[in-house]
Amino acid sequence: MEIHLLPRREQWSKLLSRDAVASVHDETARIVSEVFDTVAQNGDAAVREYERKFTGAIRTSLKVSEAEIDEAESLVEVQLREAIAGAAANIASFHSAQVMQPVEVETAPGVMCMQRQLPIDTVGLYVPGGNSPLFSTILMLGVPARIAGCRRVIMATPAGPDGKVNPAILYAARVAGVTDIYAMGGAQAVAAMAIGTESVPRVHKIFGPGNRFVMEAKQLACYRRGTALDMPAGPSEVMVIADRDADPAFIASDFLSQAEHGPDSQSILLTDSAEVLEATVKEIERQLAVLPRGDMMGKSLEHSRLIQLSSMSEILDFANAYAPEHLIINTVDADSIAAGVKSAGSVFLGPWSSESAGDYASGTNHTLPTSGYAVAYSGVNLDSFCKKITYQRLTPEGVRTLAKTVMTMAKAEGLEAHSRAMEIRQEALQKSC
Amino acid sequence: MEIHLLPRREQWSKLLSRDAVASVHDETARIVSEVFDTVAQNGDAAVREYERKFTGAIRTSLKVSEAEIDEAESLVEVQLREAIAGAAANIASFHSAQVMQPVEVETAPGVMCMQRQLPIDTVGLYVPGGNSPLFSTILMLGVPARIAGCRRVIMATPAGPDGKVNPAILYAARVAGVTDIYAMGGAQAVAAMAIGTESVPRVHKIFGPGNRFVMEAKQLACYRRGTALDMPAGPSEVMVIADRDADPAFIASDFLSQAEHGPDSQSILLTDSAEVLEATVKEIERQLAVLPRGDMMGKSLEHSRLIQLSSMSEILDFANAYAPEHLIINTVDADSIAAGVKSAGSVFLGPWSSESAGDYASGTNHTLPTSGYAVAYSGVNLDSFCKKITYQRLTPEGVRTLAKTVMTMAKAEGLEAHSRAMEIRQEALQKSC
Repeated sequence: MEIHLLPRREQWSKLLSRDAVASVHDETARIVSEVFDTVAQNGDAAVREYERKFTGAIRTSLKVSEAEIDEAESLVEVQLREAIAGAAANIASFHSAQVMQPVEVETAPGVMCMQRQLPIDTVGLYVPGGNSPLFSTILMLGVPARIAGCRRVIMATPAGPDGKVNPAILYAARVAGVTDIYAMGGAQAVAAMAIGTESVPRVHKIFGPGNRFVMEAKQLACYRRGTALDMPAGPSEVMVIADRDADPAFIASDFLSQAEHGPDSQSILLTDSAEVLEATVKEIERQLAVLPRGDMMGKSLEHSRLIQLSSMSEILDFANAYAPEHLIINTVDADSIAAGVKSAGSVFLGPWSSESAGDYASGTNHTLPTSGYAVAYSGVNLDSFCKKITYQRLTPEGVRTLAKTVMTMAKAEGLEAHSRAMEIRQEALQKSC
Repeated sequence: MEIHLLPRREQWSKLLSRDAVASVHDETARIVSEVFDTVAQNGDAAVREYERKFTGAIRTSLKVSEAEIDEAESLVEVQLREAIAGAAANIASFHSAQVMQPVEVETAPGVMCMQRQLPIDTVGLYVPGGNSPLFSTILMLGVPARIAGCRRVIMATPAGPDGKVNPAILYAARVAGVTDIYAMGGAQAVAAMAIGTESVPRVHKIFGPGNRFVMEAKQLACYRRGTALDMPAGPSEVMVIADRDADPAFIASDFLSQAEHGPDSQSILLTDSAEVLEATVKEIERQLAVLPRGDMMGKSLEHSRLIQLSSMSEILDFANAYAPEHLIINTVDADSIAAGVKSAGSVFLGPWSSESAGDYASGTNHTLPTSGYAVAYSGVNLDSFCKKITYQRLTPEGVRTLAKTVMTMAKAEGLEAHSRAMEIRQEALQKSC
């Protein structure tokens, strides 16, 4: 852990930096590019061969059958089923409230302009395999997709060496309303969804986390083919703002939650209280001692920072410059500080709002912009599964209202035919009078 | 022009194809990648050197001064100034109506979730130079940026060989509320905005059209650096749906407007009336004869298609599979057909709504998804200049409501510290009772 007491502004840039390497590695890019070419050429056979090679899984069909999902459902304990249902209900409640009402404006006499939100027809969700079965991510992506009205919600997730997918993952996918599940992972899964194969439909947008091959594959699909993505990816991070009243035990528990995500996770504490900072360091050491995964968490904590700043106004400046994925405001007046936040993925207000509440069950989405991308990107929300279409209707009066403006501008841009398309309608109206 | 009468569905895939080459050319990518490296290394000096090399323009400062803009304003004719003001007012009216109201939901007892829209701090608008000064694009990008509340709205546009920027462009930028104008174009301008130089601030999102170097530069900025973009680009296109009552002269004028955008533009007519199709062919030839740029327009019309289909239902299937940038519904019952449109950039309803009305002045945005990207991307709208942040606040009651769900899920995902962050708060509440 790095400790910085009252650093001068000139020293901030080093403290604001993220250590994480850039997401594009030449070698990763070369491998992923080859995977794309192979999947484009050989379809399902290529995907199956990569699966066999990387996971040892041999399946006759990439697609997971209803019978497999039924079996999985029976293997999930009742308590976990209830928890998944409860989380899904809260996520549904919050994302349903995000449905956009149509916009309709008469911008000028006889000129009606409208905007409506429509679902993206086919979306692809990537869900990593490995030791931690991230079924919570399925709820975060599948539930909003269903509310948006996406017709096909494809999920790709790798099978284990026995060819089977984790039961909790299959169960959560059913709860979330996923329509098609494919037992495939890595760059080949992303390639299959971006390109389409005999059994996997080409999707219009790809969501979800993954290792560097998955991330590179998503970025390559966007770069080469214009496939829409949820957002660029980077290591997870939390920033905690704490005043002198904050409980150091809470701060420490939030640091350790973040550290648990992986050795490249970053946690930053900003406080105006030297006492809270000192007490937090001790609490982290105390809590770390009794948690599993201590080694990995220690590694993540190495590049975590505890920073004392002189005032809440300075703290806000620092937080906005960093644009954290998760921002916990553990202060007495959390709302007034939140009003000054300009860039963040998701904000947790007050002492009782742990990041883990939002990671699982408060109802907000946990797929959020990392690495400072919050300056321009939103976390996944209902919009992410929709596109907006505009409409306009000119009446004869509208033609009269706009003709001069359109014709003047079109001619000044050297676009005579644009002018003529308006003029021809104007003439038709004059004739009919 | 290709004419297809009642093609069978098996033949559609050829008719739905776009001839345009993929946007990523290896040679273009290599050149643009070099430009990025040079700009990253040498900043302003690199940009100035590229400008000198490609346009002949020599300027002491990349930034356009207030005095230059004042001078430009005096050169723009009154009629054009009025037209620009009128268009800007309609664009402002429609985009102001798109401001999102905050969302606030109590998803469970003691668990408040909120979502708010905030402006992206610094955005970059690219406006091409060349023969057609696209000042309309400045309004389409600058006006919503101002309404969204972006603090800095940077515009890059190339100067001519005399070092001066087109007056109408500078004037429109002032009307739109652009805060900083830089006389620079091509890949170097995009690189300067994506990376930042001594005089050009690094922007968080890049908007606007351009040639293949500009487009490649935008895509590379996104791929390499995660810079947000408005959308991937491709040649402009229009699809016209017409019934037997449609005026062939109107259809022809809309085809020719599109053809005027460039030799790679595409126009497609879908009609259930063989008579309208035939009459449209004749009208196109008649109108083409009296318009300037005939050669270029003839080239564009070569890959345009006039297609007779058997019914409006078949026409809608075809239109949705194509996902056109512009969709003109020139029919009696345009609204009911529009209700079946699932993917399009912007829709023009009825005979009086020419595409040129929306290109300039109806109030809708003309920066729209081409090449079928409308399946997943929206045209530029107020959202494009904003990001959405979520917030949650748990009260002590909220901790009691969510604790079991969060702890069960966290443990099932193998994330003990996540569970612990909730548990430690639950224990604190129990102690205080």
